Amino acid sequence: MALKLAERGKVDPFIVMDVLRAANQRAAAGGDVLHLEIGQPGHGAPKAARDAAKRAVDEVQLGYTDAGGLPELRRRIAGSYRELHGLELDPERVMVTSGSSAGFVVAFLSAFDPGDRVALAAPGYPAYRNILSALGLETVWLETDLEHRFQPTPELLDQVAGQLDGLIVASPSNPAGTMVDEAGMRALCEACKARGIRLISDEIYHRIEFQGRGVSALEFTDDAIVVNSFSKYYAMTGWRVGWLVLPPEMVRPAECVAQNLFICAPAVSQYGALGALDAGAELDAVVESYRRSRDVLLTELPEAGLSRLAPADGAFYIYADVGHLTDDSQGFCKRMLDEIGVAATPGVDFDPARGQRYVRFSFAGREDEIAEAARRIRRWLKG
Amino acid sequence: MALKLAERGKVDPFIVMDVLRAANQRAAAGGDVLHLEIGQPGHGAPKAARDAAKRAVDEVQLGYTDAGGLPELRRRIAGSYRELHGLELDPERVMVTSGSSAGFVVAFLSAFDPGDRVALAAPGYPAYRNILSALGLETVWLETDLEHRFQPTPELLDQVAGQLDGLIVASPSNPAGTMVDEAGMRALCEACKARGIRLISDEIYHRIEFQGRGVSALEFTDDAIVVNSFSKYYAMTGWRVGWLVLPPEMVRPAECVAQNLFICAPAVSQYGALGALDAGAELDAVVESYRRSRDVLLTELPEAGLSRLAPADGAFYIYADVGHLTDDSQGFCKRMLDEIGVAATPGVDFDPARGQRYVRFSFAGREDEIAEAARRIRRWLKG
Repeated sequence: MALKLAERGKVDPFIVMDVLRAANQRAAAGGDVLHLEIGQPGHGAPKAARDAAKRAVDEVQLGYTDAGGLPELRRRIAGSYRELHGLELDPERVMVTSGSSAGFVVAFLSAFDPGDRVALAAPGYPAYRNILSALGLETVWLETDLEHRFQPTPELLDQVAGQLDGLIVASPSNPAGTMVDEAGMRALCEACKARGIRLISDEIYHRIEFQGRGVSALEFTDDAIVVNSFSKYYAMTGWRVGWLVLPPEMVRPAECVAQNLFICAPAVSQYGALGALDAGAELDAVVESYRRSRDVLLTELPEAGLSRLAPADGAFYIYADVGHLTDDSQGFCKRMLDEIGVAATPGVDFDPARGQRYVRFSFAGREDEIAEAARRIRRWLKG
Repeated sequence: MALKLAERGKVDPFIVMDVLRAANQRAAAGGDVLHLEIGQPGHGAPKAARDAAKRAVDEVQLGYTDAGGLPELRRRIAGSYRELHGLELDPERVMVTSGSSAGFVVAFLSAFDPGDRVALAAPGYPAYRNILSALGLETVWLETDLEHRFQPTPELLDQVAGQLDGLIVASPSNPAGTMVDEAGMRALCEACKARGIRLISDEIYHRIEFQGRGVSALEFTDDAIVVNSFSKYYAMTGWRVGWLVLPPEMVRPAECVAQNLFICAPAVSQYGALGALDAGAELDAVVESYRRSRDVLLTELPEAGLSRLAPADGAFYIYADVGHLTDDSQGFCKRMLDEIGVAATPGVDFDPARGQRYVRFSFAGREDEIAEAARRIRRWLKG
């Protein structure tokens, strides 16, 4: 008897991975490639993180930690909310996770039952909808555009027919780089409270900010689940360590879910993360380097005729409207790679319906590569 | 409006964690504790693993790896099946995961849809049923006992009413330590094939073997999903790195699930795992130490009147029937901790229905602690 595969296991791959494969093939064949497709920092973990990890490998047994993470790491993370947001946070509400990815799985399983409906902005990070669908949850799209700064609003929630159980907001956003300001976040928190919607606030790009301040949902509510990570500002992508801040009544259920599904986040990475919390100066210099790359792109892309750009308030992305040039952003990105060696991500990863007219440029990579890519794009489109 | 918590998030905690907490409280109050409750090696990762991890921290950027893991690690793991089982395995079928825990999540999501029914032996590892239930799957218990060596058989499958979609077999077993031999594994694979059941073979305790050889389901079928880990034989619990061997047609769906839910296993741990594959002599010495601890327990426990013991073929557990002494194994374990400082796990974690008459003793800890615990138990019960 032939064995079946699960229907729910048939989730979409990331198209960015196809771009990455094509870019790597080009590089392997001796071609040069400038990487503006990848959403990960071009440098590695800060020295303090690497030193702390090596010390732990030498001195600590590195067995299972508590399901919620090393107590010292939870305390330090809770303390960071005092510094950054003026909030006193009980460390018990902090759960260390295997990257924000595992954090989303724990959050969704603890908050939502099969068939529940979760709203999120299109364009948005593609794993949201794919994790939701694997876990039996329905994605409700909020179509946002440049005029909404690609962010959800209470008005967009009002336009949804039927009850919503959850809302994901990502500020700064991937792919748009836009942020929700204080008034916007307060309004979203109030709208969620009034409508009985659980807010999931993805704050993984906090501290990579160029215009305005990264506002946490925790400044306005204890009902939200906050997702954060050491992958972006702390530049520890491959270490797989992130955290949740949970509503008090969700701490115990989430702990039981995490214990069963994951046991704990990797101990060596948790020690590395402790070190990373002391690497402020090194990391702030990296953010300044992102800022320079952003400024180059914001100058050069309009010169290339790409003037409809999302305001890159934070994160390391520019989401560019290329609709005047193509209705096939995948083909556009392929040609850009073939002809000038610049890899970027077609918008269809982030917005299945309208992504064919958008391209995401990441400036997380090396500063000289970004600058060279900007020049090549301008020559290519205006040459 | 009050926000709900998910029903499916209400999974059971591990009772062993309560035991651990009580043991730690006793230790913090100055009492001595001998740890026979924890299923993790008493020593840390082997030197070759620690050296490889430190080298990677110094020399490699440690960004995201492929969703399936480092190509070199997948090749080395595939090669180990040649050495241990005489099998040629395509490295593409190996997926590196964040411990076997994430491996189970990927396996279940790729193989089963909500409502599907998965059989497993009682007693068994409690996370099986908790992950299954969080993912909307029904656990079908196969009641096994000492006469079945606590392992499933085709006859037990025949007794199940209705269709089964999956079967989990764990050999060596947690908590029983028993193994399925070659004839038994062949019969299970054939029974699954005949009935259209997807076999999930949990082989995480392979290579910790005292009687007989750890047989892989892959010796008889390519349809099974094999789950394995660097946590047990390789003693890398807190590093969170394991692997799946997937049926060929499941490689791509599982990759998409893993990419979305986890991105990849921790890179630093993957480099450590590569080192661990070269640590044979150090690890085999550890297994010899387990063997000595096992022999002490198999001598002393019967002297203490605990003679109905599962044959400890492998892993580092002895599952003991204490039904002639108590019908409350939780109370029994609490008294044992209070009166003689020996921590062990009540059977209710593994078998909600019948676990009140069983206790699991782990001999993964320090050899001198196990020997002292064995003497104290004998004096306590026969003193």
